[in-house]
Amino acid sequence: MKQPKLDGIFPPITTPFLPDGEFSPHKLRANIEKWNQTGLAGYVPTGSTGESVLLTKDEKYRVWETVREAAAPGKLLIAGTAAESVRETIELTNKAAGLGYAVAMVRTPHYYKAQMSRPECQMTYYRAVADAAKIPVLIYNFPQATGLDIPAEVVAQLAEHPNILGIKESSGSIEKVARMVDSTPDDFQVLVGSAPTLYASFCVGAVGAVLAFANAAPCASLAVYEAWKAGDHQAALRQQRSITAPAIAVTARHSIPALKYAMDLNGYYGGPPRLPLLPPSPAVKAEVEELFRDVKA
Amino acid sequence: MKQPKLDGIFPPITTPFLPDGEFSPHKLRANIEKWNQTGLAGYVPTGSTGESVLLTKDEKYRVWETVREAAAPGKLLIAGTAAESVRETIELTNKAAGLGYAVAMVRTPHYYKAQMSRPECQMTYYRAVADAAKIPVLIYNFPQATGLDIPAEVVAQLAEHPNILGIKESSGSIEKVARMVDSTPDDFQVLVGSAPTLYASFCVGAVGAVLAFANAAPCASLAVYEAWKAGDHQAALRQQRSITAPAIAVTARHSIPALKYAMDLNGYYGGPPRLPLLPPSPAVKAEVEELFRDVKA
Amino acid sequence: MKQPKLDGIFPPITTPFLPDGEFSPHKLRANIEKWNQTGLAGYVPTGSTGESVLLTKDEKYRVWETVREAAAPGKLLIAGTAAESVRETIELTNKAAGLGYAVAMVRTPHYYKAQMSRPECQMTYYRAVADAAKIPVLIYNFPQATGLDIPAEVVAQLAEHPNILGIKESSGSIEKVARMVDSTPDDFQVLVGSAPTLYASFCVGAVGAVLAFANAAPCASLAVYEAWKAGDHQAALRQQRSITAPAIAVTARHSIPALKYAMDLNGYYGGPPRLPLLPPSPAVKAEVEELFRDVKA
Amino acid sequence: MKQPKLDGIFPPITTPFLPDGEFSPHKLRANIEKWNQTGLAGYVPTGSTGESVLLTKDEKYRVWETVREAAAPGKLLIAGTAAESVRETIELTNKAAGLGYAVAMVRTPHYYKAQMSRPECQMTYYRAVADAAKIPVLIYNFPQATGLDIPAEVVAQLAEHPNILGIKESSGSIEKVARMVDSTPDDFQVLVGSAPTLYASFCVGAVGAVLAFANAAPCASLAVYEAWKAGDHQAALRQQRSITAPAIAVTARHSIPALKYAMDLNGYYGGPPRLPLLPPSPAVKAEVEELFRDVKA
Repeated sequence: MKQPKLDGIFPPITTPFLPDGEFSPHKLRANIEKWNQTGLAGYVPTGSTGESVLLTKDEKYRVWETVREAAAPGKLLIAGTAAESVRETIELTNKAAGLGYAVAMVRTPHYYKAQMSRPECQMTYYRAVADAAKIPVLIYNFPQATGLDIPAEVVAQLAEHPNILGIKESSGSIEKVARMVDSTPDDFQVLVGSAPTLYASFCVGAVGAVLAFANAAPCASLAVYEAWKAGDHQAALRQQRSITAPAIAVTARHSIPALKYAMDLNGYYGGPPRLPLLPPSPAVKAEVEELFRDVKA
Repeated sequence: MKQPKLDGIFPPITTPFLPDGEFSPHKLRANIEKWNQTGLAGYVPTGSTGESVLLTKDEKYRVWETVREAAAPGKLLIAGTAAESVRETIELTNKAAGLGYAVAMVRTPHYYKAQMSRPECQMTYYRAVADAAKIPVLIYNFPQATGLDIPAEVVAQLAEHPNILGIKESSGSIEKVARMVDSTPDDFQVLVGSAPTLYASFCVGAVGAVLAFANAAPCASLAVYEAWKAGDHQAALRQQRSITAPAIAVTARHSIPALKYAMDLNGYYGGPPRLPLLPPSPAVKAEVEELFRDVKA
Repeated sequence: MKQPKLDGIFPPITTPFLPDGEFSPHKLRANIEKWNQTGLAGYVPTGSTGESVLLTKDEKYRVWETVREAAAPGKLLIAGTAAESVRETIELTNKAAGLGYAVAMVRTPHYYKAQMSRPECQMTYYRAVADAAKIPVLIYNFPQATGLDIPAEVVAQLAEHPNILGIKESSGSIEKVARMVDSTPDDFQVLVGSAPTLYASFCVGAVGAVLAFANAAPCASLAVYEAWKAGDHQAALRQQRSITAPAIAVTARHSIPALKYAMDLNGYYGGPPRLPLLPPSPAVKAEVEELFRDVKA
Repeated sequence: MKQPKLDGIFPPITTPFLPDGEFSPHKLRANIEKWNQTGLAGYVPTGSTGESVLLTKDEKYRVWETVREAAAPGKLLIAGTAAESVRETIELTNKAAGLGYAVAMVRTPHYYKAQMSRPECQMTYYRAVADAAKIPVLIYNFPQATGLDIPAEVVAQLAEHPNILGIKESSGSIEKVARMVDSTPDDFQVLVGSAPTLYASFCVGAVGAVLAFANAAPCASLAVYEAWKAGDHQAALRQQRSITAPAIAVTARHSIPALKYAMDLNGYYGGPPRLPLLPPSPAVKAEVEELFRDVKA
């Protein structure tokens, strides 16, 4: 199994809401059509940045359909399909498969932390999901939200499964990225989800990235990747330096509301987040405007 | 508004699954009928112990209906209705209200930790939910799972809302329980959710408890409450000492799978947890058997 | 061995510095003479509150001599003697013994956290120190400073040592206090070091307390102890409520600089802390003044 | 001021103890003479790896004298001189200066965590020390031991001080290394203290490293540096991969006792650690032997 190549930059796309809080397929389609013009490798709807925990199941399905219809040929489609239970994750994953998605991105279960920290629970979850999934599984580790960090040793064991394709590692730990690259087979792909360490991640063996920042600034994100791909370390570091501060502002510091505002600034539809996420304050808006002044959209 | 009195002991009831993973209304009804014979003050379905994060929305509704039908008159019904989004929490809360629930227990939103740690997000969430809820709201704080601890100062502000009835505090911090009791109006009720500090919580002003341990050992749990209520501190401490070790085993240490096994031992239907929660190992079973040897069911 | 009874309230006394940063034996003697008039059970110099990590070894010796000379007969003397190394802790402990101290309070070693978290390192440290110590050892756990929490299970094992007298537990966890009381022999004494949970600690079996707050407010601290000792739970809780907020202000929130200012307000010599601890800001001073308005000195 | 260039690899040298626990200047001298034959840029005695928290002040002075006498010309000497208090840190720093040390490495104060986390305390400490120090100061951040992580923003402000030369960052966070490089003047030097991220640190702008691993394997450590310096990224990554696992084993995983054992294996004197650090178990020894089989000493 294990087929799709995940090289390149993927945006975990935001879910556009209208001012009344309703999901707008129309705005989503417009964003996709703009991104289609760039070198982005594909799209990842209903991840953390897609506010998936604020969506109903039906809304997720509508998001997936919309993305599939609007995506240009050749763009790889990865759906965020995680639920805490094995059975619901399988249901969502195979629904995405049926809609034409190539890969399922599956966040670590984490609510019952004391239990979910046990390697046997982590193994059981991913193996049970991967066994039943009709498309390959991409592990998704995001301890800043889940409060749980899947160990490199567990990932190394899961990497042996023929239907577990790789990991999106969003912790920002380069040491962990390097250890996973070094301890897994060559067909297991490590992607990162942290813009400030993008260049350094490529240096130690990551093949691609799922970057929230790329929603608002796909070209600036691609510039790092392309310079590194060309072996031009100095240019890659220079490009990295130009995105670090704006990327931190719209992710770790001010999160989705600020990212959506940066999208608005750069010609995409960002719009408001869903409550209890709050719209950015005027001070945050001013900070984003300042930091994105020279960022390539 | 703010009416129901929450004095006493409430079990956050487990959701019974058959070996194939399906929810069993029949087993749930049988459990309720046994608990009806005790002095338990009411029932709290679809909390953390009820594996609510592993249930679909439809399953939650079926659980609520079953509990309502089986509960004896006079048992207060509290539904766990939290979702991460304001809109979904309101929908669930009012569904529970329509089914006859008296109170909605609403866990803190927590996935977007950096944002949800901001008091303004916490305030917005609870006020928006409480404004729209047709029944009073009980805040639910469980940092061991959520990774987020709502501050006593924020609780003190939320306590002013006419439709926010109290808090279930499961952190185990007596200092926080005491500070919330001391800094909120008299009609704001503090319940605790940690058996090892049950007696100490009553000492500093808690009025009741939502105790997972009470699923398997309602009478032993009630013994602490009743001794304290009668002003017999020595008996209360003695009863507390008899439950601390078994309660820790089936909550903090081995969690729901062990609790369900203790229920099986004590004449209730525990049954298996849902994956990725794993059934208790033989060693855990032996530990539970030993610790529950002398515990009043 | 294991003799001194540690019932009652002990202040971990502050070290008075003059404005030029020099230790003042004169000011220390004056404080002791005032405390001698109260029901305090004894004195604990060179603990965390005594800024012991900011003192040289010679200064510690001078502090110990001064306290011993000024203390009234019957006041039990406990010296803070911990160093990271076994050999230096033994040297300090036996120096204190030679100066007439009855007990050595020995904080958990903690700098090499990954190693010092191992039970075998904790056991080795305390057993090696207790074997060589000429006076009994009181374990001292203060995770808020050390970043390391010695487990109740390790304490239960150390409690078997004939020269380990008890523990001062400053974590604030009532659950842990209760578990240690329940799992150790009767001659092992649990003291607490957290004013906000003082009354609750007594309820679950603590026999005494080492309270920073008692430096500035010995009588208010004693009032909680004496009410509880008399079996008057209502009065104990009422007294507890009157000290919680001021105690938090001068410990967890604003620490030693604020505590020293509260001492100045209450007729003791507080004076400045040593750098890099900074004197309290005007806002902190105003807060302390407000909170101590009605506190019994 | 700000003169010494810190490019290259520095070992934070271990302090050799004889089996009776006494410091051995003789063994230390022998180690230095061997390291003198390598391309190491200098030596850093009495850091964390030097067990400085287990040494008396007199022992530190003897270590410094021994290193100074044995070091070959051209080896830069950096002394670990931190104490919690400003006054004691200045005293130690100027003692080191008098003995011929070029730089003082000063760990963040951290015992009073709530206070020491405040930027104004961090600023006060480093400015007061740097103002009075006769040699330049190298900030030393090691949150794994101190439990406190000095923020990049505070470092950026301290970098303006003419006598604060740089930072040794041992957190392992590449994001933080990059942010400090990007936000400080060119004459502020960032060194890292984490072998697993050595190559990645150079990529983002670190100029050198203080590596515990280099005690046992100076040449393997230098190989990473030299390949990167020569612009050969592929060789640097290959060398990095060969040191990651053995370096983790003798630092994060098994710490100083295992590092000293690796030194013994590689022809240096490691010897036993001081209590409460415990000698490596047979299993740890076997692990170290296996991992160091092919490591260049």
